[in-house]
Amino acid sequence: MKIYFSGSVSGGREDVGLYLQIIMQLKEHGLVLTEHIGDAGLDARGEPGLGVAEIHDRDLAWLRQADCLVAEVTTPSLGVGYEIGKATEWGKSVLCLFRTESGSMLSPMIAGSNGAVLREYRNVGELKEIFDEFFKAR
Amino acid sequence: MKIYFSGSVSGGREDVGLYLQIIMQLKEHGLVLTEHIGDAGLDARGEPGLGVAEIHDRDLAWLRQADCLVAEVTTPSLGVGYEIGKATEWGKSVLCLFRTESGSMLSPMIAGSNGAVLREYRNVGELKEIFDEFFKAR
Repeated sequence: MKIYFSGSVSGGREDVGLYLQIIMQLKEHGLVLTEHIGDAGLDARGEPGLGVAEIHDRDLAWLRQADCLVAEVTTPSLGVGYEIGKATEWGKSVLCLFRTESGSMLSPMIAGSNGAVLREYRNVGELKEIFDEFFKAR
Repeated sequence: MKIYFSGSVSGGREDVGLYLQIIMQLKEHGLVLTEHIGDAGLDARGEPGLGVAEIHDRDLAWLRQADCLVAEVTTPSLGVGYEIGKATEWGKSVLCLFRTESGSMLSPMIAGSNGAVLREYRNVGELKEIFDEFFKAR
């Protein structure tokens, strides 16, 4: 199972510690292609030495290879939204995770997308059950 | 020319006044299907009385009908990113507008997308020339 994990980079890195914990749990279910999203050394300025087209093309190639997309959607992010738009168009399995207690509003384009499963949660402790259920069905 | 204008709703309404000015200029070039994005009465909680699936399906139907997507991408937004992902997949003309002096970082997924034209600007005064050029080529 190849898993593409998507979280905010340019949109803000407030949740990077959470992303790392999610990635650790996802690794129980398969190969995570985008482990760098959980790297605290990666800030909102992105990846030094790589052009934007290189990053875009590499990430979309990974997304095409992936069996599923798991996206943390609490922090608004253009890149995460873009990847969900592509993945739902390509018929990939998509799981979106939203923290209900964040105070953020979730876009209806994500909450209302029939191509994506939305699961709300309060803390990482609730993710094991969500992941077990999601990956069991795949 | 049917134009789908996309700007942040759930991601934050800081730029709603700017969106209205953009929509006014876009109306010189065609029919804007999403005039409500510039409505100061529409806040981040979204459209009362409409379910998320209704909003999603209505907006995607408008996007399918549209000849082009014009997106203001300065405020990070999942919905705007999702729409750019869909529109580039569907082969629509896409123009992304980014305010260089905002202090925001633009996602490489948008800046590096070969399906979208990116134009940076400082203020609405610079948009007339950008729109004249973009729509002349259509």
